Amino acid sequence: MSGRTARRRVLRIRLPDPADASAGPTVPQVSERSDLLAAEEPLGIRVDGEALTMTMRTPGDDLDLAAGFLVSEGIVRSPGDIRAIRLCDGTSCGHTGHDGTGNIVDVALRSGLAIAPAARRNFITTSACGVCGKASTAELFVQKTWDINEDQAAIPAGWLTSMPQRLRDAQRVFASTGGLHAAGVFGADGELLVVREDVGRHNAVDKVVGWAVRQGRLPLRGCILLVSGRASFELVQKAVLAGFPVLAAVSAPSSLAADLAQEAGLTLVGFLRGGSMNVYTRADRILADVQAAG
Amino acid sequence: MSGRTARRRVLRIRLPDPADASAGPTVPQVSERSDLLAAEEPLGIRVDGEALTMTMRTPGDDLDLAAGFLVSEGIVRSPGDIRAIRLCDGTSCGHTGHDGTGNIVDVALRSGLAIAPAARRNFITTSACGVCGKASTAELFVQKTWDINEDQAAIPAGWLTSMPQRLRDAQRVFASTGGLHAAGVFGADGELLVVREDVGRHNAVDKVVGWAVRQGRLPLRGCILLVSGRASFELVQKAVLAGFPVLAAVSAPSSLAADLAQEAGLTLVGFLRGGSMNVYTRADRILADVQAAG
Repeated sequence: MSGRTARRRVLRIRLPDPADASAGPTVPQVSERSDLLAAEEPLGIRVDGEALTMTMRTPGDDLDLAAGFLVSEGIVRSPGDIRAIRLCDGTSCGHTGHDGTGNIVDVALRSGLAIAPAARRNFITTSACGVCGKASTAELFVQKTWDINEDQAAIPAGWLTSMPQRLRDAQRVFASTGGLHAAGVFGADGELLVVREDVGRHNAVDKVVGWAVRQGRLPLRGCILLVSGRASFELVQKAVLAGFPVLAAVSAPSSLAADLAQEAGLTLVGFLRGGSMNVYTRADRILADVQAAG
Repeated sequence: MSGRTARRRVLRIRLPDPADASAGPTVPQVSERSDLLAAEEPLGIRVDGEALTMTMRTPGDDLDLAAGFLVSEGIVRSPGDIRAIRLCDGTSCGHTGHDGTGNIVDVALRSGLAIAPAARRNFITTSACGVCGKASTAELFVQKTWDINEDQAAIPAGWLTSMPQRLRDAQRVFASTGGLHAAGVFGADGELLVVREDVGRHNAVDKVVGWAVRQGRLPLRGCILLVSGRASFELVQKAVLAGFPVLAAVSAPSSLAADLAQEAGLTLVGFLRGGSMNVYTRADRILADVQAAG
């Protein structure tokens, strides 16, 4: 397995600030240094010997990433669905021309569980008309593995506002590279269960979901999925397929994220920062102990 | 065509700050309001009558998005490569079951120009082993349409440091939603030529590249592509295929972004903010008029 970071030479340039002569250098400065970057490498996921997909990811927790991806595709929901999962070592897969190892995950599903072509959500082979227009956005969902609508989670707002800093405190790589998204799972008692990082936010979410499914923790009833960035349609879909009742994002959600959260009965929180939040759907799960604003 | 933003009801919750009693509310506050979200909707791209791909995008500049996507795939390089391009109106495409219009772009390529299966970069149908390991990262490039290695661009560092604010000033939607990535093209004289926004940063880049190719401006010699977020492998590939000599990002690049920029001869600038920048590759194109730092 390759590292989570990679060192590269960089030329650092700092210019004087014409608006503020008291700050920064008075003449342009250049220094050469060695800089840590977030590693990005391709990971292939192979299921029962056949290539399923490829993603650009930050190495690390690759088995969780592959398992979580299969949850997000509606294929896997319990540890027993995965008969075997391992990193290809480049010697036993029957493919020649290997020039590296550790960038392919081989998954064997349990007997009787196959990937239905439809479940692959292969938009390329379906008519693009099938995704045209609002009434068909429901089709964008792979399927609903769990019914989260009835989840009775009741989350104190103060727990939520504390979570972004706790996520940042737990991030190992971000501080050194500035280049990673994070996803974290908080349990029903507000405890931080797991944090994962990746150059791709969808990968960071797949990594925590894969961690959970391999431990038999799905559906993640009562739990909160926190993401460091924005909330897209894709992240709502992943949260629903893992059985979370709450998805919280530090930044903005998209319109489709809010619409699909509404449809699935997911509580969607955005702009979770500085003691505030916006609740877009199913606010009944958030305990604010509030007085109405004037 | 749908709108770039969508209005949704939101519950705003603000909690007292226990660490600073002088700031914010003294009791929890909740207010209901209407909030603007960045719109996210599926766009299908159909080429010569066959579905090619689907992307989740912010509506607007959809023809540019489709044209730019085809540039990024190495299929299109000049206006003449596109015989016709239009938004499907749901009546003439021969598909039934339309429940919306404006979410499919139909592209007709010039006679003789077909999409080679290999050019589709369909990782699913190729062996995942083909993307395993460092020596094969070159294969991740679709192809090099232009040789940017010899581009003689010479960019004053002070131009670069001014560009993020100029990009933000030109963003129309971000300020109202907080949910959009931006991409901008700056010309050889430092002038801002075009800005596009999208929930997906790859879409924002495809939109500016599509704008350029439809005007016959490719390759974008001497020009700078500025992106509001991080620089991934994918954005480096798009910059190279559009013929930019310089890609600048406000945030961090990944390791693979730096490696592929090096290979292609692209100048890669990261952390472009506050009068400073990191130059990862081909720093010879940046004029810093410098004194070495102590």
